[in-house]
Amino acid sequence: MTRDDIPTPALLLDLDRFERNVHRMAEHVARHGKQLRPHAKTHKCPEIARRQIAAGARGVACAKLGEAEVLARAGIRGLLITTEVVAPAAIRRLMRLVSEAPDTLIVVDHADNVAALGREATADGVVVDVLVDVDVGNRRTGVAPGEPALALARAVAAQRALRLRGLQGYAGHCAHVVGWKARREASLDALRPLTETRALLERHDLPVEIVAGGSTGTWDIDVELPGLTELQAGSYCVMDLDYRRVGGRGGELLTDFEMALTVVATVVSVPTRDRAMVDAGLKAFSTDKPFPPEPVERAGIAYAFAGDEHGRLTITDPARAPRLGERIEFFPPHCDPTINLYDRVYAVRDSTVEAVWEIAARGRSD
Amino acid sequence: MTRDDIPTPALLLDLDRFERNVHRMAEHVARHGKQLRPHAKTHKCPEIARRQIAAGARGVACAKLGEAEVLARAGIRGLLITTEVVAPAAIRRLMRLVSEAPDTLIVVDHADNVAALGREATADGVVVDVLVDVDVGNRRTGVAPGEPALALARAVAAQRALRLRGLQGYAGHCAHVVGWKARREASLDALRPLTETRALLERHDLPVEIVAGGSTGTWDIDVELPGLTELQAGSYCVMDLDYRRVGGRGGELLTDFEMALTVVATVVSVPTRDRAMVDAGLKAFSTDKPFPPEPVERAGIAYAFAGDEHGRLTITDPARAPRLGERIEFFPPHCDPTINLYDRVYAVRDSTVEAVWEIAARGRSD
Repeated sequence: MTRDDIPTPALLLDLDRFERNVHRMAEHVARHGKQLRPHAKTHKCPEIARRQIAAGARGVACAKLGEAEVLARAGIRGLLITTEVVAPAAIRRLMRLVSEAPDTLIVVDHADNVAALGREATADGVVVDVLVDVDVGNRRTGVAPGEPALALARAVAAQRALRLRGLQGYAGHCAHVVGWKARREASLDALRPLTETRALLERHDLPVEIVAGGSTGTWDIDVELPGLTELQAGSYCVMDLDYRRVGGRGGELLTDFEMALTVVATVVSVPTRDRAMVDAGLKAFSTDKPFPPEPVERAGIAYAFAGDEHGRLTITDPARAPRLGERIEFFPPHCDPTINLYDRVYAVRDSTVEAVWEIAARGRSD
Repeated sequence: MTRDDIPTPALLLDLDRFERNVHRMAEHVARHGKQLRPHAKTHKCPEIARRQIAAGARGVACAKLGEAEVLARAGIRGLLITTEVVAPAAIRRLMRLVSEAPDTLIVVDHADNVAALGREATADGVVVDVLVDVDVGNRRTGVAPGEPALALARAVAAQRALRLRGLQGYAGHCAHVVGWKARREASLDALRPLTETRALLERHDLPVEIVAGGSTGTWDIDVELPGLTELQAGSYCVMDLDYRRVGGRGGELLTDFEMALTVVATVVSVPTRDRAMVDAGLKAFSTDKPFPPEPVERAGIAYAFAGDEHGRLTITDPARAPRLGERIEFFPPHCDPTINLYDRVYAVRDSTVEAVWEIAARGRSD
């Protein structure tokens, strides 16, 4: 199968670029004495997780229990579920998962949840590894750093069926700060209370073996922190326009990782001199960012969303007007929600489709 | 199974509201002597299509060949594929579909595509029913009305393996005009060239049995046009915030159809007095509209997206602060791309889950 045989719209992964991204991050964390547990919410794909682990990652992070269930079934271990598991039925599912994959880590930010988890784990005869989720200014989940985190860590340690392993602090509000210097300052400021909380717990003889955090935007920043033990960056393996725009150490674009993910579309209508239509619309790309998909090495056109299943190409160079049936690739604005639209990704090297990988945890937000 | 047993986030369909919506539209088109071919791109669900047809629809419209393939396999007939089928491999798939479901209609807007379809249909020994797609100002696909449409209709009629059945004109640019009077004027203006094109074709003895168009926003407008034979409204069966905001004949909200679709989420974190977090983020709702999901009959909170898997609830009434584990339902901003995120929809009546329907054509944009 060649690249041109793929029905459109479809998701393509450039294997050369992907492999270089995976290798670069793995080498980076090893050089800085850190661990890597890449976020699988980005790709939801067991085969990608397998390759990240083969390159040295200690496991993968999952946003949700449902993702972790799919990856565990595919044989992936070293899972960290980065969102609190709260509903009673979800806690029961979690215990089944932990029986199957005992090294699974979860996070907590509320004493009631700690008590419920402890009860269910005791009843089921399992021991669950737990990180205390600390809000480092992201204003999402997480207990406040310092004393509140210490109190919650003590509550975890008091449960015999829970095992306190450390802390999580996700500075999502820093990951996309534009400009490397401003981002460095923001991220180090945000994570300082996390490492101070680590020290506080250790002064109280509570174990903090793991301190997890970080993002693709701060990949070469957070490793400066001695108190952080592992990174959970996700997007780096495929990249997207959004992360490219935040800028890197060296310039206006973040080019440390290569744009490996594209969506291929077909021109299905060439109705006027200034317009052509492709078969990829808002069900083919993420729509949460304020900028559109970008044609890959294809001058003379600009893309705009034009409904569920259409993209409108404005023809800016009549000499390069798209022809009916032409295939055009685009970089998606945001990788995670784009991948979540597809059941499979075509792994390509040059013009050859080397493999088709199932995005097995697609849609598993539960 | 009750409503409270459903793992979250999940898609819920209120059956009472849905059934009233389906019935109201069916009765409306019958009363005006029109046909209905509701757009299945909205729901991508064979069971919903079946119920629309049972209520009187002559079939369903599909945005893409991939959707039509799934629905045909589920036994749905009377399919209209509203986007041009252009790629050679797609044309071969189309012929297999037409062999299986011979009453399938397709649209064309280019003479080269007509020639390619004619060649393949001849080679495969099938006859394909064709509408000429006319651009009524939507600036998407479609040939210009009048002479260009006539020329293309002649090209279709000249192909022995193609059967000219009529015209399609989708005025998507009118569907969401806010205010019923302004919308009426816009839609009737837009569709006039379509009905004039119908007359032009008939003067040239070309058959125009079908003139398809319309939308949920113009459901009670387009039926005024004698030249239009069938509506392809989609959203009416489930509705969403976006269509509700365009206003109806009687008021500031379009309330002709009821809000039947919700997403149920769970409060997974209550970290501060002014904030709670739910487990539904931008992978649980459409994100293409400039307004957020809206809590259903739940005062005291406002929703904002907070990443792939989180929604941030700002607590506007401390007396109604969400409790950990509370389940909250939300109306999605835009139904079609919301449904396209889920593999199934829970069909509920009051507190009971009556059925779970597969969204079998989810992700089929190909």
